[in-house]
Amino acid sequence: MRRWNGWGDESVAFALNEEALGFLAQRIGTGTPVADAEFEQASAQLKVSRLPEHRLIDTSPEVRLRNALGQSLPDWLRLRYGVIDTAPDGVAYPESAQDVRELLEYAALHGVALIPQGGGTSVAGHLTAPSGTRSVAVNMTRMRQLLYLDTESQLATFGAGVFGPDLEAQLRARGYTLGHFPQSFEYSTLGGWVATRSSGQQSLRYGRIEQMFRGGSVETPAGTLHLPTFPASAAGPDLREMVLGSEGRLGILTEATVRVTAAPAYEAFHAVFFPSWSAAETAVRQVVQAGLSLSMLRLSNPLETTTMLALAGHKRMISLLERYLSLRGCKQGKCMLMIGVSGRKSLARAALREALGMTLPHGGVHVGRMMGEKWKQNRFRNVYLRNAAWQHGYAIDTVETAVDWPRVEIMMRAVESAATVALAQYGEKVHAYTHLSHLYAQGASVYTTFVYRLAGDYETDLARWKSLKKAASMAIVENGGTISHQHGVGSDHAPYLAAEKGRLGMSVLRALAEHVDTQQIMNPGKLLP
Amino acid sequence: MRRWNGWGDESVAFALNEEALGFLAQRIGTGTPVADAEFEQASAQLKVSRLPEHRLIDTSPEVRLRNALGQSLPDWLRLRYGVIDTAPDGVAYPESAQDVRELLEYAALHGVALIPQGGGTSVAGHLTAPSGTRSVAVNMTRMRQLLYLDTESQLATFGAGVFGPDLEAQLRARGYTLGHFPQSFEYSTLGGWVATRSSGQQSLRYGRIEQMFRGGSVETPAGTLHLPTFPASAAGPDLREMVLGSEGRLGILTEATVRVTAAPAYEAFHAVFFPSWSAAETAVRQVVQAGLSLSMLRLSNPLETTTMLALAGHKRMISLLERYLSLRGCKQGKCMLMIGVSGRKSLARAALREALGMTLPHGGVHVGRMMGEKWKQNRFRNVYLRNAAWQHGYAIDTVETAVDWPRVEIMMRAVESAATVALAQYGEKVHAYTHLSHLYAQGASVYTTFVYRLAGDYETDLARWKSLKKAASMAIVENGGTISHQHGVGSDHAPYLAAEKGRLGMSVLRALAEHVDTQQIMNPGKLLP
Repeated sequence: MRRWNGWGDESVAFALNEEALGFLAQRIGTGTPVADAEFEQASAQLKVSRLPEHRLIDTSPEVRLRNALGQSLPDWLRLRYGVIDTAPDGVAYPESAQDVRELLEYAALHGVALIPQGGGTSVAGHLTAPSGTRSVAVNMTRMRQLLYLDTESQLATFGAGVFGPDLEAQLRARGYTLGHFPQSFEYSTLGGWVATRSSGQQSLRYGRIEQMFRGGSVETPAGTLHLPTFPASAAGPDLREMVLGSEGRLGILTEATVRVTAAPAYEAFHAVFFPSWSAAETAVRQVVQAGLSLSMLRLSNPLETTTMLALAGHKRMISLLERYLSLRGCKQGKCMLMIGVSGRKSLARAALREALGMTLPHGGVHVGRMMGEKWKQNRFRNVYLRNAAWQHGYAIDTVETAVDWPRVEIMMRAVESAATVALAQYGEKVHAYTHLSHLYAQGASVYTTFVYRLAGDYETDLARWKSLKKAASMAIVENGGTISHQHGVGSDHAPYLAAEKGRLGMSVLRALAEHVDTQQIMNPGKLLP
Repeated sequence: MRRWNGWGDESVAFALNEEALGFLAQRIGTGTPVADAEFEQASAQLKVSRLPEHRLIDTSPEVRLRNALGQSLPDWLRLRYGVIDTAPDGVAYPESAQDVRELLEYAALHGVALIPQGGGTSVAGHLTAPSGTRSVAVNMTRMRQLLYLDTESQLATFGAGVFGPDLEAQLRARGYTLGHFPQSFEYSTLGGWVATRSSGQQSLRYGRIEQMFRGGSVETPAGTLHLPTFPASAAGPDLREMVLGSEGRLGILTEATVRVTAAPAYEAFHAVFFPSWSAAETAVRQVVQAGLSLSMLRLSNPLETTTMLALAGHKRMISLLERYLSLRGCKQGKCMLMIGVSGRKSLARAALREALGMTLPHGGVHVGRMMGEKWKQNRFRNVYLRNAAWQHGYAIDTVETAVDWPRVEIMMRAVESAATVALAQYGEKVHAYTHLSHLYAQGASVYTTFVYRLAGDYETDLARWKSLKKAASMAIVENGGTISHQHGVGSDHAPYLAAEKGRLGMSVLRALAEHVDTQQIMNPGKLLP
């Protein structure tokens, strides 16, 4: 069963062994475990629903609690400490576009806000119920069917609430794949990916969701927006691009048509180490700009590399690896690169060879497939680390941005520096490390993870998070980064959006939302503060 | 010097020989040449400018006439027959964003409409001065500098009024290329490409302008919209996508940052013939879906193939070619495919080999590079054919759309059929032929050319064009195509836009324009009717 107060399935655990805990203790001190609130205790806090009845809406406290929050750190604090100060008044499970239209009419009639959601995996506060108004969470996960597969055009139309694994299973049965694998894959949905401009781990091959999303249907308070599929069009601004990233402010995506491709015959992930960050960054920039047919490039900085090796839990093997790398010039300050290739075996291997060859002048040491395959096995399990760390009294959070190449290293250092000292006022240290999660000819995403100790009470931990989030977000904005490369805006990033959109850009986005949603019932408070 | 009443430079001519004229005569009858109006006679018709003076605005009839119209067939009719029923009251030549802002203030103060323009190559009526209001054409071509080249991120920032050849020359001097080569390349501008969502002949390698346009600056009546460059972003809807295709309705693009790449070391164009349309279409679909590193695929249908061979003007060579093709199975009904490759020689040749191999099971006959290189030589000269045909009493016009694969052949036949009989009421035939100009995994653009005889007077020729344009446009809309894949909407396609955008989509686009341009002074009447 899915965890109500953490990531993923209750039956899956990701253990931290003594060495891993020793590593963390040395960096930021020993954590003190905190007792979790009970589900019953938490759900008992919910105020009585104030909603008029509706056949599609469930107002039981249990269902409301399970659909109240996402996976942002403030959401976790609420759940773990049992401080449920916000929850929708009900949860609707539409099964058709007609159901969604009915909910929109209900919302308009009663002045109730709607909060569309897929799998509730947002890490940016997309799902928080607005204060001061009644609200209904619209859980889209019953709309999950593959409705149409056009093999000639390689287009698949799904109900927008389909989960990642379900979508891939329906496509794989027919020989196709979408190829969209964000870390949230197991619990996130197609509609959520579109609404938040999601990007998957293999976007180098398959593209971001923007490139995959070819058309669909959006139910808005002003009517249905039908987005037909064209291979390309010069007929005015692209309405799809207004839906992408709209985060529920314009309406609810009910159907989405996506570009699919034949499932790859071959797939492999390899690891390469570099002696230093500057060597590694130069190498990956050259590789990505060469336009080779790779499916993934993911580069960890020295501290992330050290952290991953320390947390891997195979001390003997890792120390053998480190000795080998040291002999080959990768010592203190080494960086790990994961390279993925997919497709026809001959072409994939040729691309890999080419890429590996390009790393050599920069001191790249290819260590083969083993670590890459390990990474692949754990690609959706690493998120569980957050549960494990919490059990030992540590919080884990992340921020991410994207910048053009000349600012990649500057950004990485700025975010890490800002984070490292952000909790000094509490006498606490922050362990901050970074990887480039997605690489482009133009630049890269810069994805920083923070580990720090829990205080043990809700108020202090929320205050600590706020200090840290603000410091990291300001570093992003001040260094010219976008406030999100892949997580979206939600509530947590909304205060920083104007820095990149500008005064006029913000007013354009607001005008757009107000035009289709005159009563402002669609996910109020998110995206546009 | 540039022609005032036709395409291109006065010194360039594209002759039609006896065989070519014989071919046309046989298809649609012998043309009767029409005498052109003189420039002086035409400019003398312009009403006196009603504009208040401004240091940036030239109100002389000569300059106004040269900036009054584009290259649509109705524009040609006006110029050739000297019926100048529409012209701006003046032409401004801004040299900076500050100049553009000054023009916006002037326009707002005096209630004057602004018509932004680049090289005036629109074939969809983007430049027509609105009736019932004073207007100024804002000619952007003095803003043409390469302002910044970031070689690390492969981004170049230009003044938006830079012409294609000037842009490429500035980049090539530094070892880079944009790679955007629409047929209008010689006289179209970067800003025009962005404003109309242009696509170049080698988009398979370099992408459409949507993919190249990474940021920039737009002066709108509501202020400056600054679009920063990010490699990717999940921070809400993409404002660039509202500027792309906005056709001057939101404001004037003054600077654009575009993605560039190293100039290719190697480039080649090859021709392949197929025995039939269905064989050819299946082959190119498989080739494009294989994702090979090609730079161009361009497939002519049987009638276009016949027409191109007939108009080529090398009767003996062509008949040798046709004999050879016939022996190899390509007879009546054969189709010509152009394949382009660019990049590193070894990779380009490998991709070409792979593509050629894929055509074999479909009866593809590779005839080598000669025809391809000929095509390349003439890639920007074929437009001059329109001048030549006119001299012999023929009009040439085109329509284009894009559809997913299952509808490509249906669309091609529907547009050709509709066009062929569209002038029956005038007792005239239309010679209509088609190529797929841009190929995508999802589908293709369908680009149809019409040749028909001129009546010899403005009113009748305008009526004939209207009948033809309407018939072809209705065929596009009724068969689910976009009203433009690469030419934009302007005035001529505006009546058909709602068919794809829908009622709500149209109202969203209107709300957007009205929000930034409350007085509706920006290019009124275009895009949104």
